[in-house]
Amino acid sequence: MEPHNPASEYFTSYEDLEIHKLMLEDDPRTSAYKNAIMSNKAFFEGKVVMDVGCGTGILSIFCAQAGAKKVYAIEASKIAGLAKEIVKENKFEDVIEVIHSKVEDVQLPGNNKVDAIVSEWMGFYLLHEGMLDSVIMARDKFLKEDGEMFPESATIYLSPCSVPSLYKKWDDFHGVSMAALAKQFRTSKYNKPEILNVQAEDVLGCDEVALCWINLKEDTVSDLDSYSIQHVVGANKDGAFQGLCIWFECVFPDLSDNANHNPVRLDTGPLSTPTHWKQTVIILPEEQEVELGDPIAFQLEMCRDSVNKRRYNLQLSILDPEAVEHPLPCTCDLTKCLLIKSYMLQHPEESEKNAMETNGIEEEAIDDDDDMDSENDDS
Amino acid sequence: MEPHNPASEYFTSYEDLEIHKLMLEDDPRTSAYKNAIMSNKAFFEGKVVMDVGCGTGILSIFCAQAGAKKVYAIEASKIAGLAKEIVKENKFEDVIEVIHSKVEDVQLPGNNKVDAIVSEWMGFYLLHEGMLDSVIMARDKFLKEDGEMFPESATIYLSPCSVPSLYKKWDDFHGVSMAALAKQFRTSKYNKPEILNVQAEDVLGCDEVALCWINLKEDTVSDLDSYSIQHVVGANKDGAFQGLCIWFECVFPDLSDNANHNPVRLDTGPLSTPTHWKQTVIILPEEQEVELGDPIAFQLEMCRDSVNKRRYNLQLSILDPEAVEHPLPCTCDLTKCLLIKSYMLQHPEESEKNAMETNGIEEEAIDDDDDMDSENDDS
Repeated sequence: MEPHNPASEYFTSYEDLEIHKLMLEDDPRTSAYKNAIMSNKAFFEGKVVMDVGCGTGILSIFCAQAGAKKVYAIEASKIAGLAKEIVKENKFEDVIEVIHSKVEDVQLPGNNKVDAIVSEWMGFYLLHEGMLDSVIMARDKFLKEDGEMFPESATIYLSPCSVPSLYKKWDDFHGVSMAALAKQFRTSKYNKPEILNVQAEDVLGCDEVALCWINLKEDTVSDLDSYSIQHVVGANKDGAFQGLCIWFECVFPDLSDNANHNPVRLDTGPLSTPTHWKQTVIILPEEQEVELGDPIAFQLEMCRDSVNKRRYNLQLSILDPEAVEHPLPCTCDLTKCLLIKSYMLQHPEESEKNAMETNGIEEEAIDDDDDMDSENDDS
Repeated sequence: MEPHNPASEYFTSYEDLEIHKLMLEDDPRTSAYKNAIMSNKAFFEGKVVMDVGCGTGILSIFCAQAGAKKVYAIEASKIAGLAKEIVKENKFEDVIEVIHSKVEDVQLPGNNKVDAIVSEWMGFYLLHEGMLDSVIMARDKFLKEDGEMFPESATIYLSPCSVPSLYKKWDDFHGVSMAALAKQFRTSKYNKPEILNVQAEDVLGCDEVALCWINLKEDTVSDLDSYSIQHVVGANKDGAFQGLCIWFECVFPDLSDNANHNPVRLDTGPLSTPTHWKQTVIILPEEQEVELGDPIAFQLEMCRDSVNKRRYNLQLSILDPEAVEHPLPCTCDLTKCLLIKSYMLQHPEESEKNAMETNGIEEEAIDDDDDMDSENDDS
C-alpha cells in the first residue's frame, strides 16, 4: 500500500515534525489518552481498534499495551513511515497495522468492523482545523453497533474574560505609555481570534456556558455545521470585559464495573493545566468596565466556512443585557434575576421544574409572575 | 518625508506586530536598555542621540526621559508611524524626531553629529539576521569622535551541552520507546541550529569560551565576516555531550563618576533569565557519553553567508582531544593539563606571564617541559 520512504521523506516540512513534538509534549493531552485507555484495560483486552490520524502512533501503542489484539493505525501524511518504525521499536508490529492512507479510502479485510475508535482529532476551540468529519465518517463505516469512541463526547465552553496582555499593561510599560501600540494589537486581532493562555484570575464570568455538547457516538457531520448561543452571565468581580474566552473539554468512556464512575476528562479551560490548544479569545475592540454582578450579555455564532470546510467563522455580538432573556437561574444581579433566585430558593421543587423547562438556548420568558416582568421593565 | 499612514498600514504583516510585542515583553532585554540609559542620566542630560532601528520607539523615549535634548529615531519599516504616535502619547514630540527611512539614507540637518547611538540590533546568536552592519555604518557617519555606543561591546560564548528534549526523554516517553522519532528530530536539525532554552543543569562545560569579542566603538563591518575558534574544555560532570550551545552578552557603558563601575549587562546565556533570543544549539547527530573531567574538543567557524549578508553559516567539527592544543590552563583532566595546572599553582607569577602569552585562539604549545609533552603523547 505504501512505497518505502527513506527517513528524510517522512515529512513534508520541518514544521510538521515540530507540531508532532508539540502535541506529544502536551502532557495533559498525552496523559489523558493514556489514562483513558489504561483505565479500561478490561475493555481493550482482545479487541479490534482503529486509531484515526495516528501520527507517530503513540495512541495505537497505548491500545496495544492495554491488550488490544489488533489496531488499525490510519495516517494520511508521510509520518506514517515513522509510525511504522516506532511500532516496530516497541515490538507491536504483529498487533498494530499502520496504514498510510486517508481514512476515507481505507478498506479493512473482509469488511471488518472495530470495537473502538481512538482519535485525537481536536483543533483550536475544538473544531477549527480539526478532523472530526473524518472520525465521524470512520465511525459510520467501521465501528460496530455497540462500539466505543475515545473520546465519547466533547463540549465547547465560553466565558467573558480580561486580556491584560493586550490592554492594561501597555498604559504604563516600563514607565512608557504605549496605548497606541495596544490599540494596534487589538485592531490586528479584530478579525482573527487570539490563541493564548488566559490566566485563572482573568476569567470574568460567574460561570462558564456550553456553546454545544457533541455526542461522538451519534452526532452527524451536518450537526457540526453551526452552533449559536445567546447568553447572560454575571461578572464574578470588578474588572474589565475585554474578550470572550473559548475552550473545550473531552470526556472518555469509563467502562469499568466500578460503581464510582469517574471518566477521564481532557479539560483545556483556563482553570486547568495549560495545553498546546491554550484558549481561543475573541478580543473586543474596546473594553467594558464591569462591577461584580453586572450582567454581560453576548451572542456567539460558530459556522463552518463555506469554502474550507475544516475552518469555522466566529461571530461575536455584545448585547444589551436589558434587552435579552436571562438564563434561569441567572448569575447577574439585575433585580429580576435576584428575585427569581430568591424565589427558587424558597420553592426548590417548582424552580427545578421551571429550570428543566426553560434551560437551553431557546429558553422562554417566565410569564407567571407579573411583578418580575415589571421589575425587568423598570431596571 | 513620510506620507500619512492609516493605522492599518503600519505593518506589512500581523507577524511583524507579534515580533515587536515579543521583544518588548522580553523583560531582561527591555530592562537592560532602560537601566543602562537611566543609570547614565548625567551623561544623557542635554545630549543628542540616535536610535538605530527604533521600532516602537521605546528606547528613544528612555533617552528623552533621561534628559536627551534631541533623539533621532530611525526606523525603516512602517512601524515608524506607530512610533510617532507613541512619542506623541508620551509628550516627547519636541525631543524625538521619528525618521521613517533606512539609516543608510538619513541626512541630519547641517550634517549634525550625535553624542550617542542607542540600538537594539542583536539577532539569534548575536549576528544572525541582526543589523549590526547598519549600526556600524551609522556610527562611522553620525557619531562624534568621543561619542558613546549603547551597548558598547558584545561577546559570543560557547559551551558543550546536553539536549534532553531531543535525546534521552524519548527512550521512555509515557512508557513508549520513541527513539526513531528522536533520531528524526536530530536529522531534521542537523543543518539548522535549534533555538531553545538550555537548562542550567544541561550545560556540560567547566567553563564557557568566547568565540569573539566585538568592540562596538571600533570594529568594522569586515571584522564581522568570520570568526573561528578551536577549543578544549573539561566536562563539568558525567553526562551526554549532545550539542554546542551558543549565546551572547552585551555590555553597556558605565559613565558615572562612581568608583565602583558596574556596567549594565544583557546576558542571554543558559544561567541567566531566559530572553526571546533563548540560546542557539548545534545538535550533534550522535551523542557522546562523557565523564567528569573528560576533554571535549571542537572547532566552530561562523562565516557570513555570501548571498544573504545578514545571515551566518555555522560549521562545527568535533575534534580528537589528543590531537589538538589545549588552553592554558585547561579544565580537562588529561595528565598534561593536570600537571600544568599543578605547576601554575606552584609558580603563580610565571604562569600568569605564560597565560598572557598563550591565551586566545592562536595559542602556542608549551615547549619548555619535555615531560609534559611526553605525558601528552602517552595519554
